[in-house]
Amino acid sequence: MRGGIWGMAAALACAAPMTAQAQTAQLAGRWIVTVDYFGTPTIWTLDLAQDGNRISGDLTGDVLTGTVKGNEIRFLAKDKVGGSEDVTARLANGRIAGEMILIDGAEQARMPHRLSFTAKRAPQPSGGPPVLHVNPGDTIHTATIDAAGIDAKGVRRAAPGNPQTGPFYIDGAMPGDTLVVRIRRLRLNRDTAISTNGMTERGQDARTAVRMAGLGKPVTWRLDRDKGIAMPEAPGDALKGYWVPVKPMLGGIGVAADPSLAAPGSGDVGRFGGNMDFNEMGEGTTVYFPVAVPGALLYFGDGHALQGDGETTGDALETSMDVEVEVDLVRGKRAGQVRIETPTHIVAIGLDGSLDASFRSASSSMFAWLAADYGLAPADIAQIFGTAAEYRVSAVPGRAAGMVLKIPKARLATLPGAPKP
Amino acid sequence: MRGGIWGMAAALACAAPMTAQAQTAQLAGRWIVTVDYFGTPTIWTLDLAQDGNRISGDLTGDVLTGTVKGNEIRFLAKDKVGGSEDVTARLANGRIAGEMILIDGAEQARMPHRLSFTAKRAPQPSGGPPVLHVNPGDTIHTATIDAAGIDAKGVRRAAPGNPQTGPFYIDGAMPGDTLVVRIRRLRLNRDTAISTNGMTERGQDARTAVRMAGLGKPVTWRLDRDKGIAMPEAPGDALKGYWVPVKPMLGGIGVAADPSLAAPGSGDVGRFGGNMDFNEMGEGTTVYFPVAVPGALLYFGDGHALQGDGETTGDALETSMDVEVEVDLVRGKRAGQVRIETPTHIVAIGLDGSLDASFRSASSSMFAWLAADYGLAPADIAQIFGTAAEYRVSAVPGRAAGMVLKIPKARLATLPGAPKP
Amino acid sequence: MRGGIWGMAAALACAAPMTAQAQTAQLAGRWIVTVDYFGTPTIWTLDLAQDGNRISGDLTGDVLTGTVKGNEIRFLAKDKVGGSEDVTARLANGRIAGEMILIDGAEQARMPHRLSFTAKRAPQPSGGPPVLHVNPGDTIHTATIDAAGIDAKGVRRAAPGNPQTGPFYIDGAMPGDTLVVRIRRLRLNRDTAISTNGMTERGQDARTAVRMAGLGKPVTWRLDRDKGIAMPEAPGDALKGYWVPVKPMLGGIGVAADPSLAAPGSGDVGRFGGNMDFNEMGEGTTVYFPVAVPGALLYFGDGHALQGDGETTGDALETSMDVEVEVDLVRGKRAGQVRIETPTHIVAIGLDGSLDASFRSASSSMFAWLAADYGLAPADIAQIFGTAAEYRVSAVPGRAAGMVLKIPKARLATLPGAPKP
Amino acid sequence: MRGGIWGMAAALACAAPMTAQAQTAQLAGRWIVTVDYFGTPTIWTLDLAQDGNRISGDLTGDVLTGTVKGNEIRFLAKDKVGGSEDVTARLANGRIAGEMILIDGAEQARMPHRLSFTAKRAPQPSGGPPVLHVNPGDTIHTATIDAAGIDAKGVRRAAPGNPQTGPFYIDGAMPGDTLVVRIRRLRLNRDTAISTNGMTERGQDARTAVRMAGLGKPVTWRLDRDKGIAMPEAPGDALKGYWVPVKPMLGGIGVAADPSLAAPGSGDVGRFGGNMDFNEMGEGTTVYFPVAVPGALLYFGDGHALQGDGETTGDALETSMDVEVEVDLVRGKRAGQVRIETPTHIVAIGLDGSLDASFRSASSSMFAWLAADYGLAPADIAQIFGTAAEYRVSAVPGRAAGMVLKIPKARLATLPGAPKP
Repeated sequence: MRGGIWGMAAALACAAPMTAQAQTAQLAGRWIVTVDYFGTPTIWTLDLAQDGNRISGDLTGDVLTGTVKGNEIRFLAKDKVGGSEDVTARLANGRIAGEMILIDGAEQARMPHRLSFTAKRAPQPSGGPPVLHVNPGDTIHTATIDAAGIDAKGVRRAAPGNPQTGPFYIDGAMPGDTLVVRIRRLRLNRDTAISTNGMTERGQDARTAVRMAGLGKPVTWRLDRDKGIAMPEAPGDALKGYWVPVKPMLGGIGVAADPSLAAPGSGDVGRFGGNMDFNEMGEGTTVYFPVAVPGALLYFGDGHALQGDGETTGDALETSMDVEVEVDLVRGKRAGQVRIETPTHIVAIGLDGSLDASFRSASSSMFAWLAADYGLAPADIAQIFGTAAEYRVSAVPGRAAGMVLKIPKARLATLPGAPKP
Repeated sequence: MRGGIWGMAAALACAAPMTAQAQTAQLAGRWIVTVDYFGTPTIWTLDLAQDGNRISGDLTGDVLTGTVKGNEIRFLAKDKVGGSEDVTARLANGRIAGEMILIDGAEQARMPHRLSFTAKRAPQPSGGPPVLHVNPGDTIHTATIDAAGIDAKGVRRAAPGNPQTGPFYIDGAMPGDTLVVRIRRLRLNRDTAISTNGMTERGQDARTAVRMAGLGKPVTWRLDRDKGIAMPEAPGDALKGYWVPVKPMLGGIGVAADPSLAAPGSGDVGRFGGNMDFNEMGEGTTVYFPVAVPGALLYFGDGHALQGDGETTGDALETSMDVEVEVDLVRGKRAGQVRIETPTHIVAIGLDGSLDASFRSASSSMFAWLAADYGLAPADIAQIFGTAAEYRVSAVPGRAAGMVLKIPKARLATLPGAPKP
Repeated sequence: MRGGIWGMAAALACAAPMTAQAQTAQLAGRWIVTVDYFGTPTIWTLDLAQDGNRISGDLTGDVLTGTVKGNEIRFLAKDKVGGSEDVTARLANGRIAGEMILIDGAEQARMPHRLSFTAKRAPQPSGGPPVLHVNPGDTIHTATIDAAGIDAKGVRRAAPGNPQTGPFYIDGAMPGDTLVVRIRRLRLNRDTAISTNGMTERGQDARTAVRMAGLGKPVTWRLDRDKGIAMPEAPGDALKGYWVPVKPMLGGIGVAADPSLAAPGSGDVGRFGGNMDFNEMGEGTTVYFPVAVPGALLYFGDGHALQGDGETTGDALETSMDVEVEVDLVRGKRAGQVRIETPTHIVAIGLDGSLDASFRSASSSMFAWLAADYGLAPADIAQIFGTAAEYRVSAVPGRAAGMVLKIPKARLATLPGAPKP
Repeated sequence: MRGGIWGMAAALACAAPMTAQAQTAQLAGRWIVTVDYFGTPTIWTLDLAQDGNRISGDLTGDVLTGTVKGNEIRFLAKDKVGGSEDVTARLANGRIAGEMILIDGAEQARMPHRLSFTAKRAPQPSGGPPVLHVNPGDTIHTATIDAAGIDAKGVRRAAPGNPQTGPFYIDGAMPGDTLVVRIRRLRLNRDTAISTNGMTERGQDARTAVRMAGLGKPVTWRLDRDKGIAMPEAPGDALKGYWVPVKPMLGGIGVAADPSLAAPGSGDVGRFGGNMDFNEMGEGTTVYFPVAVPGALLYFGDGHALQGDGETTGDALETSMDVEVEVDLVRGKRAGQVRIETPTHIVAIGLDGSLDASFRSASSSMFAWLAADYGLAPADIAQIFGTAAEYRVSAVPGRAAGMVLKIPKARLATLPGAPKP
């Protein structure tokens, strides 16, 4: 399947049509709720079970019970800290619309707020051949254009600035799930890459800055796909004969952080991935994303034929790629951060504003991972870090200065609590 | 040769005795000059050639010409920026003592200063078997005790706090030279190592800090020297079965930064090395030190059976070691920083107060190295960084947060200007 | 004038209607051009002069000449580095639509690209009473709600999360101009503020983190507007009697960075301002913004009754405010960064990911300011910094760790090149 | 009293002579113990009370009981975690010498160690007029030379490099006490100061670095002591007329961190102060130092006529000073860090390797101070920080990037637990 640029409007149109029920509305199943929170649309989930005219279930984590009479719905949902939603709604044309009296248990003054909302059924795995919708278990076959918007044939296909392929709507992916993305195949599909001869300011002291002044110009690299190496096209005398093995990778891969988010591809990063520019994001690597919006909205791009640690040139060897990625879902389990698994390591990534902060967050993210998935106590984790940690710089040219903490899977394999493959 | 703790007094006593010359003093050769610089003793060098009663040479980089009559010496030395030393001195008992009128070319107001000094002949390579003096080309066979001062037999030999073996006085090493130290052999010599179950504060966010509170206690590791692995002696349930391959390394290796420096081993680092705790400082690695004081005063210690990147536990697997290092000199050539060469990489190390600063200094140090030794232009270096840089964290528990930049030697081997092995 | 929430759609509808000309279209004046740059809409400007059927002018900085025949337009624009736009277009219904052959002088390979575009006349200062449009020289009289969306009467008016008042469209403001915003009046309008009892992680070492665990709860402060002080409503025993003078400020003030930017108010910052949380952003302070989009799109909000340096609690004393700001334009002159002028100081602000990076960028921003506006040489600037710099932390809880560099205006007033007031 | 350079040897010679007692040695009082800890001399304290032949007291914090027979001494001291010292010693010639069996309660394996030690009586406040010894309550009247070693008359008195005046031995100061140093008077005593026209690398981005290349040259400033202002002696055209009010301060002030420490004045800093370069270290300011060695060994120097925040020039307006400081002791109470009190604020200082780390440590140090001395709970402290914190950069050119956190004393004065003046 070859992906193009996908529009949000198309996805919204995919909601399965519903017929209104004659006597008692049939509500069982998952609904996507859009709450008008003082002018800001906010996405909640509603899971309902129904026994005659009694309903029960869960409203974004709060336990609910209530009734349905004809199309009239009433229920009360409660959290554990004194908050509640008292809901009055009505089913019409397959959609629920109504109001709730919200008492926010986390607010200091428990002032009730009256909020309106609408809900539609969560999209089901569609039977027919989707174009941009993808089912869990599917493999996406596509191609990415380079960071300047150029494709395999040298044709400009989009504006420069890390244009991404996607987003892909993963059917059934809901907030609270984990999206699994396995990079099955990642291959060069042309003979050139573009880089620069500059160096990130983060790597320059004053003396180096004086020597580097005026650099940062584009340079072309030849990609020899048979030999698997790259060479500068017009090296200076002292660089003649220089070559590097290629190691294809995706600079950008992420999911939507927020339903109101501007289009992806801006070059920024966060806990939902993005322009991470980590040079082990290649064939055989799996990425785990927390799902924040229905469908997850996966995108990827910014292929690099290879990249040194830190991506100190700002542009790595930017080129187009043939890509196959398999997507899957782990329902109801979600980490707070993107997680990465290469063929040999588990990898936590820190994407903060300095290397020191990213060292801290990568370490703390791995600490939480080992505690949650391997049942390790803090003292155990300290000892694993002390004997097996591998800290590398991922990329520093952007707003984030990325650092990864890698733990070899061989070290963890013998632990009693290690997850079974 | 087995080294012990070596005292400065012993070295001073090694100066070869000189007999005063009857008619014209014979001054040719190298002298170590101690200048009383307004109360602070400062070490200079004096290289003299002699033709009858005419002398010429070099006073700490300034070109000199002058005369000697009997034991009376007069010469004038000049630098390139208007500075000079006008010297009147006398040879007695094999030592030169005198005064100079110094005009410091770098000072704003070129006010002449009158300074007194003494000089003695630079130590010569001694003919007999030295105990703690070492000749260039020699190999030191010794053993290091662990960071707590315990030796291979479990006997405390020194106070805790990274006690070092040495210093070794390298005969002929002078300021302006480079000391080459090749780690020929580095082997475990006992069956236990001591580490801790804590984690450096640099790696803890607030949530992790709460979970780690109270940890940092010592833990014992078993070293299986036949299998080449280490295992915690009393692991928690979830850590049972954990093992790691050993990879012996020297946590500390350095030379004296300053003649007035306090004893080494404080755990600090700088451009003369020290407690760098870089986990590739093992068998096969060569370290290049700028020489700052006569004899260089090499020391090393703090052996680790293995260490994760960052030495996040504060103590790695601390143990005693059998050590063989070969020392050599490159005369008259000196980098501003310690440089490291492993079997596969050249390595620049940043030892500043934050990872961001160390990223900057490791990068700038490697930039200078590639420019000086490989004849590469700034644009060339940028491209090598962009395609071959490997940035790893060395150690963060101390005052410095160390980061290394490694470039594979395989990438540099084909360059026209690559140094011949 | 009291501002509300302003929609982009409204602004687009304000374009003055144009009648097509019978014989030769009348094109003189400024046009806003939207270029479809490979799928990305990009805003350019077109300034045209007309003499019969000959036209000349400037297309986003490139000098153009051409002709108009009836409604058919042709011109060629050139830059100084070999780039050009060869334009064919047509006027219809007051809008220009057409195509250009673009050769990008900055691209390595000067491949021509064919791009389509439309243009409409730049909005003129409107004669009638605008509601959300503002003329240069106007003063906006409005009120801001607090960071939680609550107004002066305690009524929730928007969702929490730093909701902003605006944006205001400044008539005539174009990219390349500087928007001047003078805070004329900033007054408390209710008797309470909300803060928290937590502390930013950036200020906590591990020991402090353990002691602060679980804090970060909201706390209410009383505002005594007569005495001009604030007191915690329910202080702990040891805090009884604590009071602080109020010093009202706007936490957020900014302009649009990009036409495609999501709604402001997200709490982020950049060179177009935003949630800067600098506690001298009060009455008497002037802010200078680079204009990036037509109309600039000014917004502000997040009033604080007072705030300690660093906003270490995450929330300062959040409250609603009565606000009067005067806006003005400096046409054709633009700094790369927001600049601030208090009654006593000029202030450069660094808004990077660490205090060290913000120290660097605030210093470099002030360096550029003093060089450009005071005619000072680098050595002069160094001496001013060395004797008059005041560095303070602005706010650290967000993604940026802000730091300001202040120079007293009294120090600069006597300089020969000082701008005349 | 005018201080000069004081030698350690003189202090050691001041120990009061003791006569051996005929029958039962009289041991009551304080002793300074030097323990040979596996080759490293370590300073402990011994406080003894005596009732006939029974003795009791405290050995460096461990409670002891024992006996004395003639000159033979035996006692056992115990800590709270299972450690002990079993001591056998003898008094001779006014000194105690002996051995102890040490069991270190903090060591994992409680292996007994046999250590030898000697002890002499702690120096008493001397009756006669001391030259370099100072009694608590005394005021030191002296002068400091400038950072280049030049005195008030322009005569070089020491080598450049921040030469310090002192150290002063404060009679009775012991580890565990706090040394109080009040700067009573700090006055310029000549008409020039030396600074530079450079800028610290920490403040330069790459563009600024290019413009600043080659600067860092010395510049002379005129000090007009009548008007209280400073002016550059030969300003560039654009800097003509520039002047700044003087605000004299001590760049360096500290106590010995360690008995084996090299001479002070190296420009480094730490929790015992040093070259802090904080521009409020002037007349009226009090500094509190943790005492680490007997006598504390106070030193100060590096006077600045004035200094901008951050000391971005590396050298501030360096000049000589007339100085009066009063010293005092708070016995048995000690903070872990240097603390500062200006006429208006209490000030915690962070002296770490980055501004971010120093922000953290200054915050955590102030947190501990407010908790300990004002009885405030963590939530209270958070609120004080949030409303009254003032964070300023102290100095960044050295190895540490210093930042201070100031809290106005006016804010704290009304708190129930505020220390009484």
